[in-house]
Amino acid sequence: MDFTLREDFTLRENEQIDDLMVSGLRIIQNNKAFKFGTDAVLLARFAEVSQGDRIMDLGTGSGIVPHLLYARDHGIRVTGIDIQEDMADMAGRSAAMNGIGAALDFLCCDVKNVRELFTRQSFDAVTTNPPYKACGSGIPNPDYRKYVARHEVLATLEDFIAAAEWLLKPGGRFFMVERPDRLCDTMELMRKYSVEPKKLQFVQRDPGSAPVLFLVKGIKNAGRELAVEAPLVLSEEHAAF
Amino acid sequence: MDFTLREDFTLRENEQIDDLMVSGLRIIQNNKAFKFGTDAVLLARFAEVSQGDRIMDLGTGSGIVPHLLYARDHGIRVTGIDIQEDMADMAGRSAAMNGIGAALDFLCCDVKNVRELFTRQSFDAVTTNPPYKACGSGIPNPDYRKYVARHEVLATLEDFIAAAEWLLKPGGRFFMVERPDRLCDTMELMRKYSVEPKKLQFVQRDPGSAPVLFLVKGIKNAGRELAVEAPLVLSEEHAAF
Repeated sequence: MDFTLREDFTLRENEQIDDLMVSGLRIIQNNKAFKFGTDAVLLARFAEVSQGDRIMDLGTGSGIVPHLLYARDHGIRVTGIDIQEDMADMAGRSAAMNGIGAALDFLCCDVKNVRELFTRQSFDAVTTNPPYKACGSGIPNPDYRKYVARHEVLATLEDFIAAAEWLLKPGGRFFMVERPDRLCDTMELMRKYSVEPKKLQFVQRDPGSAPVLFLVKGIKNAGRELAVEAPLVLSEEHAAF
Repeated sequence: MDFTLREDFTLRENEQIDDLMVSGLRIIQNNKAFKFGTDAVLLARFAEVSQGDRIMDLGTGSGIVPHLLYARDHGIRVTGIDIQEDMADMAGRSAAMNGIGAALDFLCCDVKNVRELFTRQSFDAVTTNPPYKACGSGIPNPDYRKYVARHEVLATLEDFIAAAEWLLKPGGRFFMVERPDRLCDTMELMRKYSVEPKKLQFVQRDPGSAPVLFLVKGIKNAGRELAVEAPLVLSEEHAAF
């Protein structure tokens, strides 16, 4: 099924419409804010979703992950939250523009406050592409919106994983993309919040290069058994993008 | 420098002499016991040693890792411990046979008892190729000596990492080879015992295959900063073996 672009959407200053190249979906992005990248596309592809799932995307930004998941399976409902009000508003307008506002909800919400807004254990899956850099490390981006998206300014990796623990049903699935230097933190925090790492895949640009990202799947309250998959090599994946 | 085989060594029943193909070193192995494999060779190559280091190899088996480390740098002293008395004895006879008994010590000792035998913080580096399988998992090997070497029958991964924590000086280096399904356990336990993971390398048989092993370097009491290296692909490493 292809989506038809609605006519009644609003574009704000610095916003543009980008074609997602899948099912005719388009998304609004702001030239001055954090724009989606390969990591979001990889996360959406890595996530396992099935008909009837209720899914949460934490730190959704432009709403790219919910849109790509919905393109794969129209029988899901996805909620995306972002701490930046203008991002959540823009993501909602993208869903409306694509005529899929009934399946995708976007809310402005801090991951630290999910307990106040959402019922415990009410989601089948959680996806997240959190800020990569630990607070205090790296060079702050002079643009505040990009800084918030990339650094743990307003929420830490622990806040994201703790939110997933609250939201997921027992046996619920967690999918995250992160940078390799946060691997140990990720494993430690997933264990701490009972989201057991079950599948891990590193992403390399080339066959002989160090990984630039990793994708991890966790299952809430599952037993200990981690499978590390063959790395995903981007230079060999042209066909998939 | 090449080593000359001494004439005055003793071979016991089922024992044979294998050439390590490096510096003329040979090692005694028992056909009925656990024999060294690629993992030990990779661990010895991955470990960083320097002149004057005092090194401990936990669960040394035939003593292969101490022998290979010594072949790389004759200015080190290595102690190898193994819970199986006949293995420690055999490793000691290998060192004597190679005329390097002054540099390599082998003792029968349980990793759980290192506090009784060794001074706290007395080693610059610790290497270990521990039993891979968690106790209770997998099929027990009918040969007890192989079973002990492969399964956590007598000591767990935690016992090995706790022993490293006791033995290492602050800033001391830890090098371990393990199977990918123990990655999360390894990260969690290294953090627990203040041996911070700093470098991680997966080992694949082929470019497109899932890893079969990983090598990890930790530094005692170090800050959090993990580098994941390009995977080591065995089929592309002929020259190195």
